[in-house]
Amino acid sequence: MNGMHFICDPLEIERKSFEIIDSHIPAGKFGSKELWVLKRVIHATADFDYVETLRISHDAIDAGINAFKKGVTIVTDTKMVAAGINKKALNKWGCNVKCYIDDPDVVSYAKNNCITRSMAAMIKAVEEPDNRVFAIGNAPTALYQLVELVKNRKARPELIIGVPVGFVGATESKELLKALDIPYITIEGRKGGSTIAAAIVNALLYMA
Amino acid sequence: MNGMHFICDPLEIERKSFEIIDSHIPAGKFGSKELWVLKRVIHATADFDYVETLRISHDAIDAGINAFKKGVTIVTDTKMVAAGINKKALNKWGCNVKCYIDDPDVVSYAKNNCITRSMAAMIKAVEEPDNRVFAIGNAPTALYQLVELVKNRKARPELIIGVPVGFVGATESKELLKALDIPYITIEGRKGGSTIAAAIVNALLYMA
Repeated sequence: MNGMHFICDPLEIERKSFEIIDSHIPAGKFGSKELWVLKRVIHATADFDYVETLRISHDAIDAGINAFKKGVTIVTDTKMVAAGINKKALNKWGCNVKCYIDDPDVVSYAKNNCITRSMAAMIKAVEEPDNRVFAIGNAPTALYQLVELVKNRKARPELIIGVPVGFVGATESKELLKALDIPYITIEGRKGGSTIAAAIVNALLYMA
Repeated sequence: MNGMHFICDPLEIERKSFEIIDSHIPAGKFGSKELWVLKRVIHATADFDYVETLRISHDAIDAGINAFKKGVTIVTDTKMVAAGINKKALNKWGCNVKCYIDDPDVVSYAKNNCITRSMAAMIKAVEEPDNRVFAIGNAPTALYQLVELVKNRKARPELIIGVPVGFVGATESKELLKALDIPYITIEGRKGGSTIAAAIVNALLYMA
């Protein structure tokens, strides 16, 4: 290999990547905004399974864009999701990202109540009125807890991006999310992850 | 749903998850250390494709464990990979994580030389002798550049975890990694990602 015989212009890499992604997505299956989110998810994962499993409620994309334009705070379940969100795009709209997983209140509340820190983090997060968008990429228990809080009228987010990954509770927690009357973006089944949650947030931020 | 009718003990979730993962992996295909890495990757992704595509050089796991026991610095290509590494496990061995992507030298070097910031970050990273393990989860150009630096005897890492994701250069950069005489852990094909790179680092840290 000669060091310069590969594409190293980021814009050209991205253009070429989306050309390849486009060629694999069946035409007409998605609206243009939904397609953009799907393409960002596939770009982040190189996994075309998401063509079949990405679920976007009819009002979710507009809800996300409108929220971001107001400069809301996005709550993430992991620091990985927070790290993956494009800070330039975030700052453009005056938005913030918060992850409560290491908050001392959360750590002690989880221990005292025998729940996961991911759950305690959601309980703490909904107390703050600026926390209007939730992006859960890792912990099914975080999504379960958030669903409970919505059902108990302790929370009313403008958008929930609920894409936890895993073998215990991930599939089920995402089904419960879809049954709420809150705009959502999710993935059917076990797959998901922090990179996907961040990719969806970024897709909406770029669209705003 | 009743809030308490799901498993919310993290240890029980993990135990149950690995029981399900175990039941899907063909017996005898992997050594016990390799199997542990594979299981952590599947745990992080819920994707069994990695049974077929994870590649671990014969010396990679011991090389990683030995390096971590010396308290080395791990270089990541993205802040997401850095965020996903377990800090408690890292601190236990006196290891550090560094990501140079936002370093002002890196930003200006990339601009002046028309290369990606991911590439410039690798050029900067190899100057520091403590940087002994590299974990690349996102950018094929970072892996390309690191391979070049090894070939040009500018770098000699103890382990390269090279699992960039994508449609342009990811597959090829990972093939070039396998052709080096450096211990490696990689994924064949387009798939990979920051969550996988972090999961592999954590698997080795837990084994150390």
